[in-house]
Amino acid sequence: MSQFENVTVVKKANVYFDGKVTSRTVLFADGTKKTLGIMLPGEYEFGTDAKEIMEILAGDLKVLLPGESQWAHIQGEGEFIVPANSKFKLQVTEVSDYCCSYINE
Amino acid sequence: MSQFENVTVVKKANVYFDGKVTSRTVLFADGTKKTLGIMLPGEYEFGTDAKEIMEILAGDLKVLLPGESQWAHIQGEGEFIVPANSKFKLQVTEVSDYCCSYINE
Repeated sequence: MSQFENVTVVKKANVYFDGKVTSRTVLFADGTKKTLGIMLPGEYEFGTDAKEIMEILAGDLKVLLPGESQWAHIQGEGEFIVPANSKFKLQVTEVSDYCCSYINE
Repeated sequence: MSQFENVTVVKKANVYFDGKVTSRTVLFADGTKKTLGIMLPGEYEFGTDAKEIMEILAGDLKVLLPGESQWAHIQGEGEFIVPANSKFKLQVTEVSDYCCSYINE
């Protein structure tokens, strides 16, 4: 879907890595949460609390998921899933637009 | 207000200046529109179609409004208004978080 309807948006941005990664929080009526974010080129490591489904809407990046030794390469659109309470690495080579869904299990 | 409720959010980001300025579009039930955006340090010139109310939520920037010869300096929170169909310049010195309201007159 190209837009989220009947949602709540938190006004202030979430800012990481000196603004090279930023996002806005979107809250859904069913109590779930997503963030819509932008990553500028750079190398980043993130940690998860909840399980995350990362949908890449546009961009170019490589991701190293926890326990993996091979980087996955996403150009344009793609998706990857990160387990709860883990860490993953990103090498972003083009401005990347993403939608991250937080899954409480 | 710290969040917008019962709104529609467009999933894809608006990306300008190689991603140094990005925003998400928020649509309201009354037909009005706002964008929530981030500007990284840099110098930018923007043009307006509708009148814009730019609320700075955080950051540090100077703005030169159309017809003015003096730059206004906003540190932290602030606001400025840009007439429709005009141009304004920004010198952003710290990552700046903004909410732009588009006013159709």
